[in-house]
Amino acid sequence: MSAPIYDRVALIGLGLIASSMFWAMKRGGLAGEVTGYARSEATRETARRIGLCDRVCDSAAEAVADADLVVLAVPVGAMGAVAREIAAALKPGCTVTDVGSVKKHVIDAVAPELPEGVHFIPGHPLAGTEHSGPESGFAELFDNRWCLLVPVDCRSSGQVARLRSLWEGMGAHVDEMDAEHHDLVLAVTSHAPHLIAYTMVGVADDLRRVTDSEVIKYSAAGFRDFTRIAASDPTMWRDVFLTNKDATLEILGRFTEELFALQRAIRTGDGQHLFDYFTRTRAIRRGIIEAGQDTDAPDFGRAKRAGK
Amino acid sequence: MSAPIYDRVALIGLGLIASSMFWAMKRGGLAGEVTGYARSEATRETARRIGLCDRVCDSAAEAVADADLVVLAVPVGAMGAVAREIAAALKPGCTVTDVGSVKKHVIDAVAPELPEGVHFIPGHPLAGTEHSGPESGFAELFDNRWCLLVPVDCRSSGQVARLRSLWEGMGAHVDEMDAEHHDLVLAVTSHAPHLIAYTMVGVADDLRRVTDSEVIKYSAAGFRDFTRIAASDPTMWRDVFLTNKDATLEILGRFTEELFALQRAIRTGDGQHLFDYFTRTRAIRRGIIEAGQDTDAPDFGRAKRAGK
Repeated sequence: MSAPIYDRVALIGLGLIASSMFWAMKRGGLAGEVTGYARSEATRETARRIGLCDRVCDSAAEAVADADLVVLAVPVGAMGAVAREIAAALKPGCTVTDVGSVKKHVIDAVAPELPEGVHFIPGHPLAGTEHSGPESGFAELFDNRWCLLVPVDCRSSGQVARLRSLWEGMGAHVDEMDAEHHDLVLAVTSHAPHLIAYTMVGVADDLRRVTDSEVIKYSAAGFRDFTRIAASDPTMWRDVFLTNKDATLEILGRFTEELFALQRAIRTGDGQHLFDYFTRTRAIRRGIIEAGQDTDAPDFGRAKRAGK
Repeated sequence: MSAPIYDRVALIGLGLIASSMFWAMKRGGLAGEVTGYARSEATRETARRIGLCDRVCDSAAEAVADADLVVLAVPVGAMGAVAREIAAALKPGCTVTDVGSVKKHVIDAVAPELPEGVHFIPGHPLAGTEHSGPESGFAELFDNRWCLLVPVDCRSSGQVARLRSLWEGMGAHVDEMDAEHHDLVLAVTSHAPHLIAYTMVGVADDLRRVTDSEVIKYSAAGFRDFTRIAASDPTMWRDVFLTNKDATLEILGRFTEELFALQRAIRTGDGQHLFDYFTRTRAIRRGIIEAGQDTDAPDFGRAKRAGK
């Protein structure tokens, strides 16, 4: 095994992403010592019990001391406060990155808090499950997934290359883009779809004439995939929508327009419009299979593999 | 192995559902001879080549002759015409069922075409994948899934029990309900979610500022599940929306109301509203896992099982 990419890494926040990063770094021998901190004492206790992090610290400042890489893995709305908390304890010349789903807001909140000489390189791994917490992570989470880096200072290019190596070592492909474009792309591929799934699951739950048990029993017919999306962490998603407000609302506006057009086609019996639309969307799916971002297996092979 | 439940079964239409029924009936030894018919000659050729059905016939009338059970497995909009085509060839006392996703329309279209003495027992297996055609079927499709039967004539109760045994033999659980309730339940759990997924995928495709390749590459972040749903058979779904118009439009109206409320919460920065909503929808997911209609495995075990 080659030398680690970072001698010391600090994970601030110990949820799904940070815990998966820990196991992926260990799998690849990518980091020397990994320290960890979570605001909740219960989370720190769990982390110690399951061996998550080489050393779990009782303050964020203690965790980041001497770290070459600090990873902010807290909800987007908490990033600024955490940056303020650790700023004085950061090692000069270290790199600070984050894993938040929104980039413009995080940059605005974090960058002003960090001292001169620290390299801030925002990031966002496009990977997750509907589970959260320190016990939800696993080493394979980033395998064959994308991680987007959003460099904000050209003087950090050497450190960007180093962070890229870390993500590649954890199994991810890495792309770079600017913050505004990132936030629009994610509004389309993630934020709007999540809000829509949350909405549909809420509607089903509200409906008096269809019982909850009916919705649950008969969910295999399409609704099930929505419930998986709508089971994601509420705090994280509240923050995503509040901090990527403009792009999300824009995409939802487009969505509503199209939905109204399809509803009109249903109401007026315009079968050709529906057929053409559905034929077009089917082709997009083919592109995703070809890009290796999903499997073509019937039922995702769910039947064959129950439980974690 | 015990005696078959039906000596002769005829499958009219040879797509995903009918082909899966064939393999499931063979797996369980549930039927003697199974005949099949599809309107397209290419489909009939494929069926013969892959051994789908014991005998592939060149007309629907030939396929149903002497059949104890006839399964109408064509798009909902074609059910009436097919019933008219086979009516004169049906064996007296046989059972006719269907697998359409809408029940009230199918009953209105099929029942008047069938001769006196034939038992018509509408059905709907809640199972599927985004694939279609004679080669997409597999014996396990119905395992642990629900099949809803919608009996329309109390004189058929003996035959309902027999059809129930067939579905149970193919791995399904069976429930009975009336047609109107079925169509509402399915509008919630399947039809509205499909239209919403189709819409979102269409929006992504329309957006000029986000390239197709970006949408495809970064789809793991939520959008991917929508594309799977939106890849379903266009003809089948056109017919579903046109024939379950009222219930679908009602649910979509509710959906739009809720979506507007959530959009307003985003616009006004009402984080508590979002958090409470997302916490509620998360609980529904837990119910579905407990009901055995999905797996809790991270990423559905997709990473471990690529390809069919």
